[in-house]
Amino acid sequence: MRKLKIAGCAYALPQDGKIRFKDQTRYRLKDGQTILDLAEEAANSALESAGLNISDIDIIIAAMATPMQAIPCNAALIHERIAKSTDIPAMDINTSCTSFISALDVAAYMTDSGRYNRMLIISGDTASAALNPDQKESYELFSDAAAAFIVTSEEGDSGVLYAAQKTWSQGAHDTELRGGCGLMPAFKLTDENKKDYYFDMKGLRVLRLSTSKLPEFFRSGLEESGVTLDDISLIVPHQASKALGLMMPLLGIEKEKYIDRVKDFGNMISASVPFILCQAIQEKLVNRGDILMLIGTAAGLTCNMLILRY
Amino acid sequence: MRKLKIAGCAYALPQDGKIRFKDQTRYRLKDGQTILDLAEEAANSALESAGLNISDIDIIIAAMATPMQAIPCNAALIHERIAKSTDIPAMDINTSCTSFISALDVAAYMTDSGRYNRMLIISGDTASAALNPDQKESYELFSDAAAAFIVTSEEGDSGVLYAAQKTWSQGAHDTELRGGCGLMPAFKLTDENKKDYYFDMKGLRVLRLSTSKLPEFFRSGLEESGVTLDDISLIVPHQASKALGLMMPLLGIEKEKYIDRVKDFGNMISASVPFILCQAIQEKLVNRGDILMLIGTAAGLTCNMLILRY
Repeated sequence: MRKLKIAGCAYALPQDGKIRFKDQTRYRLKDGQTILDLAEEAANSALESAGLNISDIDIIIAAMATPMQAIPCNAALIHERIAKSTDIPAMDINTSCTSFISALDVAAYMTDSGRYNRMLIISGDTASAALNPDQKESYELFSDAAAAFIVTSEEGDSGVLYAAQKTWSQGAHDTELRGGCGLMPAFKLTDENKKDYYFDMKGLRVLRLSTSKLPEFFRSGLEESGVTLDDISLIVPHQASKALGLMMPLLGIEKEKYIDRVKDFGNMISASVPFILCQAIQEKLVNRGDILMLIGTAAGLTCNMLILRY
Repeated sequence: MRKLKIAGCAYALPQDGKIRFKDQTRYRLKDGQTILDLAEEAANSALESAGLNISDIDIIIAAMATPMQAIPCNAALIHERIAKSTDIPAMDINTSCTSFISALDVAAYMTDSGRYNRMLIISGDTASAALNPDQKESYELFSDAAAAFIVTSEEGDSGVLYAAQKTWSQGAHDTELRGGCGLMPAFKLTDENKKDYYFDMKGLRVLRLSTSKLPEFFRSGLEESGVTLDDISLIVPHQASKALGLMMPLLGIEKEKYIDRVKDFGNMISASVPFILCQAIQEKLVNRGDILMLIGTAAGLTCNMLILRY
């Protein structure tokens, strides 16, 4: 076990940004708001929930799927909002939608070794910046949101028991946003290639690749970890889409064991896992000593899973 | 010491992409070439230099300063080029120009713990995608390049002796590329705000902040590490600009102890440190058992330093 204790968390949604598509609720930033506002709010609330000040933090990790600017990294821009007068290091860790799981995995090496004793991990993305109104499936799926966690090196029973990641890049173009960055700069935008600058999801291809890879990834992860499904109190999956309700039974996970709030929040990209995990903690669906699993698929296609004792 | 052995490395420059500004040589991608081509070339050559195949690699880390696409992460796009039929995990680590140093720092926890035994770290950016012809200082400074390293968990004397990072976000907007991503999507580009979509460097401000922070960072790092300047055989600094020749003496580092090839290659963003380190290894300026320091400033403003025994 790598010692790592969750000491606090919070999440933020755009105020007055609630919209609905039939029975599905989504949240979108309004003009004048940015994901930095949500990240700042979540980070400050997470600090408060842990009884800490920013000066207590040893590193700020932005675990986001999308860049806010091409330069500097997301963590530096968040640092400016919450830690401007400090010299706290700022770093981005990105495995797309499962960035929070990867960041927690990396963080556990640093808390366990004593390198950093208190870490602030922040996730969130501006989905609404590039949704394509003509691609209903994705246009109606995503929400803008942020979530933040404080993790510490406090001695005790809390820690990461197991973590794994795999990437199958035959899925690299099934979920993508091609335009705006190095390979296809903003200057190259024309009326003809406009759709390359929108988020593009081939839902059926993602689902097909995920269903072909996730069950074996899940099974072998459990086996390697030595943890059984019965040992696990709660599973927090990435809220990828309504297909969550198909995927979980495929893994042999019963409805009572995982949280599905896609209807209420949609896919919040990198914020999904920490947002839902924080809700579970606040609602006391998780108690100290419980074993949890975080799991999800991400653009890549990447699968991440992490088992921790809360 | 966290065990980590450099087992191979390589770098790549755009073929036929050499240009000159007076006595300064720079490299730029030509139409039809992308940074992915250079990353692929460097990665494959690094594998060859280590006598390994891609199937021997346990994780691919993209340590780049800029996104190639907003989604998926850079490492997944590189994975598609060099590891498509595998399930090797792909992850981005980003602290802007010093991303390679940060990635090596994180990697050393993973090799030391046995989590991953052979890691491929790739750096490189498309500087030329967003250089502003009207900002001569930056337009004439940067090169497109890539570099790749194989690091392993092999037992022995090689490893990371010390690493440190600090970020001062009062410098967050001194080196930036504001447009193209989440905060300012490509769709918002107009004739009026075009300069926001170009790379923007306030050289004098960067220099002023760097000279106010780097000396103390360097001094306290050496003190914490227990390593003296005399113990260090070679220092590989980020090739930020011609100001390197002013900065190094300010740190008390003599000309013989560090490598300055800004004249020959310019600032290669995230590729600078691994590119120059790899040249030093290939030219046998570094020998097994030698103590090296990697150091640099990055957009943020971030400072990184890492001391390793090669």
